[in-house]
Amino acid sequence: MCITLNGLSSSTPWQPWLEELRAGDVRALARAISVVENHAPGWQELLKGLFPHTGRARILGLTGAPGAGKSTLVDQLARHYRKAGRSLGIIAVDPSSPYTGGAILGDRIRMQEHFADAGIYIRSMATRGSLGGLAQTTSDVAAVLDASGRDMVLIETVGVGQDEVDIVRLAETTIVILVPGMGDDVQSIKAGIMEIADIFVINKSDHEGAERVEREIRSMQSLAPRSDGWTPPVVKTIASQGAGIAELAGAVEQYEEYLRREDRLLQRKSQNWRLRLLEMLRDTVMERVQRQLSESELARYAEEIAQHRRDPYSLVEELTGRAAHT
Amino acid sequence: MCITLNGLSSSTPWQPWLEELRAGDVRALARAISVVENHAPGWQELLKGLFPHTGRARILGLTGAPGAGKSTLVDQLARHYRKAGRSLGIIAVDPSSPYTGGAILGDRIRMQEHFADAGIYIRSMATRGSLGGLAQTTSDVAAVLDASGRDMVLIETVGVGQDEVDIVRLAETTIVILVPGMGDDVQSIKAGIMEIADIFVINKSDHEGAERVEREIRSMQSLAPRSDGWTPPVVKTIASQGAGIAELAGAVEQYEEYLRREDRLLQRKSQNWRLRLLEMLRDTVMERVQRQLSESELARYAEEIAQHRRDPYSLVEELTGRAAHT
Repeated sequence: MCITLNGLSSSTPWQPWLEELRAGDVRALARAISVVENHAPGWQELLKGLFPHTGRARILGLTGAPGAGKSTLVDQLARHYRKAGRSLGIIAVDPSSPYTGGAILGDRIRMQEHFADAGIYIRSMATRGSLGGLAQTTSDVAAVLDASGRDMVLIETVGVGQDEVDIVRLAETTIVILVPGMGDDVQSIKAGIMEIADIFVINKSDHEGAERVEREIRSMQSLAPRSDGWTPPVVKTIASQGAGIAELAGAVEQYEEYLRREDRLLQRKSQNWRLRLLEMLRDTVMERVQRQLSESELARYAEEIAQHRRDPYSLVEELTGRAAHT
Repeated sequence: MCITLNGLSSSTPWQPWLEELRAGDVRALARAISVVENHAPGWQELLKGLFPHTGRARILGLTGAPGAGKSTLVDQLARHYRKAGRSLGIIAVDPSSPYTGGAILGDRIRMQEHFADAGIYIRSMATRGSLGGLAQTTSDVAAVLDASGRDMVLIETVGVGQDEVDIVRLAETTIVILVPGMGDDVQSIKAGIMEIADIFVINKSDHEGAERVEREIRSMQSLAPRSDGWTPPVVKTIASQGAGIAELAGAVEQYEEYLRREDRLLQRKSQNWRLRLLEMLRDTVMERVQRQLSESELARYAEEIAQHRRDPYSLVEELTGRAAHT
């Protein structure tokens, strides 16, 4: 049987690989993640095979503004779960510049401090500038970790914009991390990220202004309560000292219990899958469209449009084979 | 001839409407923008008809972190251009929550202080939660304003994430507004927005820390110079006092001159159209896919997947009519 690092040949049965993966083989896990992340040949077959084995892991999404101490918090939370005997996968998502394919400023890829501990598997991901797809791929990688038997999957990213909303909302429990003394008030943070939070964390809570952030969150919550009846708790932490971590884990459990109790877990998963399905459909058809259009053709059309020698709307109709739409 | 507020009937020639629009009729302009923004029937025909008349307006994109005073700055810049005899369109883009279809927090839609001045036309836009498309629609609305004869189109949005990059990079000149004392360093602002800036503005430059922000920008620029040889200038303003506005307008002119001199305007427009074309293709095929899938079917599939009764990958293949892809 031949499984290359680049994927599966069409004649290769993936079943043995799948068994290695589910048995906890870390090299099989790493290879599966690479295949899925890069859409290497066989990636969809792999995911189809894994899918029935997903649904067991607890999936948490965590994000926060830069400077919120999110990495430290995730580390501490991971240690907490390890002490409780859980195995983890951590996906660190780094939406990078579309122009360079990599982060120019700063370093958000956290070194594997846990590298000696096989109970934690960490994977860093970046966009490489492709049109969309990162949230999809993150979700697919989480599915691989789930199917491999990891008890928990932590998806962490940095930022509080729409990209991050898209990444963390596919988790079951979404945690948004704020800090006191942010340059802008809580109100200025976009509605999107505030609405998807199931739990708020105020990290660096020993700093001045922590009470104010909490008050602002509470006041937002009374102005605009969630339609599902859950009021996201506010957990204060000092991640650098390990303070508040057990409370955070407790809040996660409470939310999961709430989801189970109200049968909302299925609702939440259905909502997530509805969004994902639309996005998967879009990505699939888009891949097909792009395959039919070479880069040089695309560049030529773009230049013709820029010179007003061609109008883009007619071109799109032509390329998608559609009749004029009125 | 019947032109309803909802669009064009298929038997309606749009030519007279187009002429009214180009003659400066504001009601025709407002209607055209509505048709284009809402994809009302006839929207693509309208854009095809307008396209040959675009390319004359100077299009500026402006964004900055919340609290940077961007609205005040845009107002002042608009007054400056009005005094110089230019007519303007201003598109205020407000990426809203995908869950509620409107901004819950704060109020970013600036009141029409200029409402008595027909030389400035202001339009506010929000996402209404649709999958993508806001940058596209913003660009289409800019095209309508361009074709209507406005000398300048200002596209303003708030935020420094990927959404905002997508919106402002389609302008010819992109202006990124920073302020001193931002909660996070310049370095923590994502690479994407720093790279697309053609001009940096440090607003509230009388505040402490302005020099430091400028130093950080300069140091980034020496670490990672632009490949096209343009070094974005740093303009200091105090928008609330109208200070630095003429300098900003001067920097815009310098950049436009640079684009013309190096024949880079065509290159820039071609690059923009390449990206736009891909996105237009994606949106068009996606609209088609969604039309073939009713909401109740989608919800049913989503629930089946959440219950593991169906795998999403096979479903997507089935729905897009594709053979298994390896």
